[in-house]
Amino acid sequence: MNKQELFENIKRKESFLCVGLDTDIQKIPSHLLKEEDPVFAFNKAIIDATAPYCIAYKPNLAFYESMGVKGWLAFEKTIQYLNKNYPDQFIIADAKRGDIGNTSAMYARTFFEEMQLDALTVAPYMGEDSVTPFLGYENKWVILLALTSNKGSHDFQLTTDTEGERLFEKVLRKSQEWGNDQNMMYVVGATQGHMFEDIRKIVPNHFLLVPGIGAQGGSLEEVCQYGMNSTCGLIVNSSRAIIYADSTESFAVVAGEKAREVQQQMAVQLKKL
Amino acid sequence: MNKQELFENIKRKESFLCVGLDTDIQKIPSHLLKEEDPVFAFNKAIIDATAPYCIAYKPNLAFYESMGVKGWLAFEKTIQYLNKNYPDQFIIADAKRGDIGNTSAMYARTFFEEMQLDALTVAPYMGEDSVTPFLGYENKWVILLALTSNKGSHDFQLTTDTEGERLFEKVLRKSQEWGNDQNMMYVVGATQGHMFEDIRKIVPNHFLLVPGIGAQGGSLEEVCQYGMNSTCGLIVNSSRAIIYADSTESFAVVAGEKAREVQQQMAVQLKKL
Repeated sequence: MNKQELFENIKRKESFLCVGLDTDIQKIPSHLLKEEDPVFAFNKAIIDATAPYCIAYKPNLAFYESMGVKGWLAFEKTIQYLNKNYPDQFIIADAKRGDIGNTSAMYARTFFEEMQLDALTVAPYMGEDSVTPFLGYENKWVILLALTSNKGSHDFQLTTDTEGERLFEKVLRKSQEWGNDQNMMYVVGATQGHMFEDIRKIVPNHFLLVPGIGAQGGSLEEVCQYGMNSTCGLIVNSSRAIIYADSTESFAVVAGEKAREVQQQMAVQLKKL
Repeated sequence: MNKQELFENIKRKESFLCVGLDTDIQKIPSHLLKEEDPVFAFNKAIIDATAPYCIAYKPNLAFYESMGVKGWLAFEKTIQYLNKNYPDQFIIADAKRGDIGNTSAMYARTFFEEMQLDALTVAPYMGEDSVTPFLGYENKWVILLALTSNKGSHDFQLTTDTEGERLFEKVLRKSQEWGNDQNMMYVVGATQGHMFEDIRKIVPNHFLLVPGIGAQGGSLEEVCQYGMNSTCGLIVNSSRAIIYADSTESFAVVAGEKAREVQQQMAVQLKKL
């Protein structure tokens, strides 16, 4: 999916919500455990209920890998289900990969060619040759970690260098030598809403993937105030607050309602464009 | 495996070689492709041939993930084979993970409890709470990326902050607040041999995992000169130069010979202890 198509979807659905499919077999409703593939059954129900209100899905690979081979099967089935039934959804593998060039190239083939995902999150620590192998695919995206939503983000990402630049700012600036706003986005946590002003000075046109709304405590309004640009420029993720809002047989219905609530708040923000 | 046991293995086998199981189905000898699981068949033969000459194995997960479910099966079988037949080998999953706390905790369970690996490589960009979930397991290790062997390592890892500290040095120093030389190691690329002197000022006692010997051009002698400490303190990895040294039916025999060559160079270095 290219940038223009993504923006068209956002306008049409009045939403820039990404539903995080952080599916944990220990947290899904117990009645699903009798299914052949409980994780896929959960995802399918969540997707069918929330798809009208979101424009993206983001499975975090850790949750699938933690179940070994079964987890990978559930992950692959989920991606296939999305590609077949909801081709207008932007699919992000939250993998936080990043390795030397030949290894990153293998990851790129896996996620972009074989699995037909739209985007992959990548950690920047290893620099250019760990990122560029992902950039050679038309209409595919690297989403580079810049300023994350967790407490530990303060340990290194905020370190100021001798040029007066913080590490996350250097990541934003330097990575623009490798890609552009048509193939690269950045992860910026909602828990640091006031930082969006500084970030927009460096990457005014890029889309930002924003975790940290909901369970982690970030404010949608603050993120929009400082982070929105003329093509929206935001994909805001919510995982736990939507997918685990209810643990009864009504879990999918409630997840759909929660997604709709967020979508309606987003519609208000999009009117300001 | 604890630090003392690792050092005992190094002394007994006169080796600190780690064989990198970066198994690529496109590179393995063609006669193996008729096997039910060619990747596992390749790994098994390589392990049997090289085990006398090394003290560790490091499968890079990217190579297995790139094959989807089949790859995970081959990975799991390889780990089970090692644990069953070579319990004295230190097994490192080269995964370069790193995510917010609850997600890192899932990874820790997967790799340490379910798969019974000894160590996992972790990327430091997200800071403390992305690393500490891995540290609560007795005799298990986090191997944190510090100074990697690739060209892109210069992009961020060498950035000097306002205190005069380079980012990789800050990672070394700061992470010692979270762990110690009994549960944490660092990745330091062999391609930057002269840097080991600076690194040993900050982490004199820790083990370092050193990629970049062989195909990537690093020098074993230089690494030992500057990096070795009184308990060896080095696990030097070689992947391609050993496992792909030959592509005929003799591939395993040749891999064993290559591993033995490296082991003999290492034996010379260990005599200096």
